Amino acid sequence: MRILTLLTDFGLRDPYVGMVKGAIAQVNPSLTVIDLTHQIPPQNIALARFSLMSAYPYFPRETVHVAVVDPGVGSDRRGVALAIGSNPSQPVGFLVGPDNGLFSGVISQTPVISVVSLTNRAYWRTAEPSFTFHGRDIFAPVAAHLASGVPLEKLGEVISPDALMQLELPDCFEAEDLENRVLKITGCIQAVDQFGNLITNIPGPKVLNSSWSIVICDHTLPGRQTYSEVMAGELLALVGSHGWIEIAVNHGSAQERLDIEMGASVQAIARRGD
Amino acid sequence: MRILTLLTDFGLRDPYVGMVKGAIAQVNPSLTVIDLTHQIPPQNIALARFSLMSAYPYFPRETVHVAVVDPGVGSDRRGVALAIGSNPSQPVGFLVGPDNGLFSGVISQTPVISVVSLTNRAYWRTAEPSFTFHGRDIFAPVAAHLASGVPLEKLGEVISPDALMQLELPDCFEAEDLENRVLKITGCIQAVDQFGNLITNIPGPKVLNSSWSIVICDHTLPGRQTYSEVMAGELLALVGSHGWIEIAVNHGSAQERLDIEMGASVQAIARRGD
Amino acid sequence: MRILTLLTDFGLRDPYVGMVKGAIAQVNPSLTVIDLTHQIPPQNIALARFSLMSAYPYFPRETVHVAVVDPGVGSDRRGVALAIGSNPSQPVGFLVGPDNGLFSGVISQTPVISVVSLTNRAYWRTAEPSFTFHGRDIFAPVAAHLASGVPLEKLGEVISPDALMQLELPDCFEAEDLENRVLKITGCIQAVDQFGNLITNIPGPKVLNSSWSIVICDHTLPGRQTYSEVMAGELLALVGSHGWIEIAVNHGSAQERLDIEMGASVQAIARRGD
Repeated sequence: MRILTLLTDFGLRDPYVGMVKGAIAQVNPSLTVIDLTHQIPPQNIALARFSLMSAYPYFPRETVHVAVVDPGVGSDRRGVALAIGSNPSQPVGFLVGPDNGLFSGVISQTPVISVVSLTNRAYWRTAEPSFTFHGRDIFAPVAAHLASGVPLEKLGEVISPDALMQLELPDCFEAEDLENRVLKITGCIQAVDQFGNLITNIPGPKVLNSSWSIVICDHTLPGRQTYSEVMAGELLALVGSHGWIEIAVNHGSAQERLDIEMGASVQAIARRGD
Repeated sequence: MRILTLLTDFGLRDPYVGMVKGAIAQVNPSLTVIDLTHQIPPQNIALARFSLMSAYPYFPRETVHVAVVDPGVGSDRRGVALAIGSNPSQPVGFLVGPDNGLFSGVISQTPVISVVSLTNRAYWRTAEPSFTFHGRDIFAPVAAHLASGVPLEKLGEVISPDALMQLELPDCFEAEDLENRVLKITGCIQAVDQFGNLITNIPGPKVLNSSWSIVICDHTLPGRQTYSEVMAGELLALVGSHGWIEIAVNHGSAQERLDIEMGASVQAIARRGD
Repeated sequence: MRILTLLTDFGLRDPYVGMVKGAIAQVNPSLTVIDLTHQIPPQNIALARFSLMSAYPYFPRETVHVAVVDPGVGSDRRGVALAIGSNPSQPVGFLVGPDNGLFSGVISQTPVISVVSLTNRAYWRTAEPSFTFHGRDIFAPVAAHLASGVPLEKLGEVISPDALMQLELPDCFEAEDLENRVLKITGCIQAVDQFGNLITNIPGPKVLNSSWSIVICDHTLPGRQTYSEVMAGELLALVGSHGWIEIAVNHGSAQERLDIEMGASVQAIARRGD
């Protein structure tokens, strides 16, 4: 049996997450459900996209990830389910939720095997779902059926992966200065975590085995390995546990210190060894 | 094996909820436990009552719901367990917790099959429970035994459902204006959710298939189906996913906008079609 | 199969806890994982130590407790796993995490059977762990193997329990006044819970069967059994559900009222009956 994960902006004070888990248990009470987070700031698709992209690699094969940050609920935005991976007979995982760009981070890293539009009401909790709570009435029960072994294709009509909504994020841009043996990478802040760490879209491996630094808001920060390499209260740059270059303050918040938000520009400079 | 749910005001910072789950696992480590919420504002029985009433319909038959919002812990308030439903051989579910009105919402919707007062210490975690933590020492272990198949009647003395504490809530009141084909329903705000949505005690089905509006604090709001039918920042009325008429602000808080609290009066006006 | 618990300062907004559970499921998807808390204030080892010490007695034998509050991650602080109890063939439980004093509360109550330093990379998630996320890459997978039956000794090199880091906490000090049949115990505040209750390091059993009171900040508070014995807003002292003497305000915060912090001094005075 496959594991199910949940990522939402439902919060934890009202019993919405509990109802979603009830709807899953009504389909199959033996499923294991793991919370990724329910504290995505309301309707923040960009942070949800980043959080899901960060977390899915740490789950067993064929895990079903349900993500519901859904400002368009009740409109005609599509509900979708995707299989991802390179081997159709053994997918890396499945994704279930609204087609609004939530999944664009994951699928920038792992190819799509197939996509269906969730039109088969036989797998919904009810043929007459609530206008405002598709997480409970459509996505959770559909995912529970998928986790219980129902084939993806039974959940609705197959559509092209090219039809999926994308969330725009500036690419990071590289310029090699061969004479000075320097690589300059221009990127942006793609997420801010709860501690105020600023997570860039510059992959850590780009600066591996080099002497590197980060330029942000007139600060130049040499690359470090751990927070404790600088004094409490000091800015630093390091490759975070998610694999991206991150700007942090030891025992503090880099977001507050620099007063910048998602999307802000940042530059990495890597100097090759001799 | 039956599923167990938990609803408390214990919060998530201290390990109280973890201890409750430990006490359940000491009885039966194979039980599935689902959190409804642990963020009920301290001792807010009214919101706990509403939250439980909203959530229980989405769980499998015979689920055991433990609810502990318990200002009277250590006093002589009774602990109770209830079976609810219409068919004694297949209850809709079970309720376990203090007898302080917590369950009055659920039992306004689903009849009580039987009630016991939790006097049989053989099913407690210890015969000498803490004065302040009956959730861990009495309710959780009793519920774990119930979920594992112990008959309700073994948990204590059978009492009359009429003896259960009720939480007072003004009824909603209907007046039919036959000449104008208009139904007027006067109700109140029975809960405020974490987003500041104001949830009335007027059932959505009362306005189904009619042109309807809500009058609250000098505002008249036409009934809508989804938040996105109005601009960000605008007030609207709709039937929420819980089935009650709700007053909301798209991308905002109706509670802050209207500055009202639980219990405030509200009127629905439904005009029948021709 | 053994139960696993998690106690961290990772918070619930970012998906770090989810990743830890994914890493556990990659080892063994059938394990039951129970959250103690993820809301320890960042890097507050003292509160983590107290929370774990409060919670572990309520779990089944051989439960594996993973605790990660780890300011020294990436430095050369050791990772450890401990078996505790008196009977090596049936331990009370296991502890897994950084060796920084987190476990010193538990082992003040229950003897250590054996300790290993987590040096065997075969049980890590990856032989090249992140510098900043040992919870995901080392502690969780090691604990999952332990919970699945791998012997403690396979996880690394056996070390002496005496080598474990201790967290300093002033002892509580007793003075018997035989003439007046009075026992005076001087202790300190060892934790402050989320409600602002001040939890001392004076064990409740010391004042059992006596008439007792607490002296703190020029207040003398007679010992009570439940919060409701005093008016809302009033200070009181009682033996908390954790078994320690606690100072509280009924429907309020003792921490705010007295404006004191962990470590503050407190005195209990117990008068023996005749």
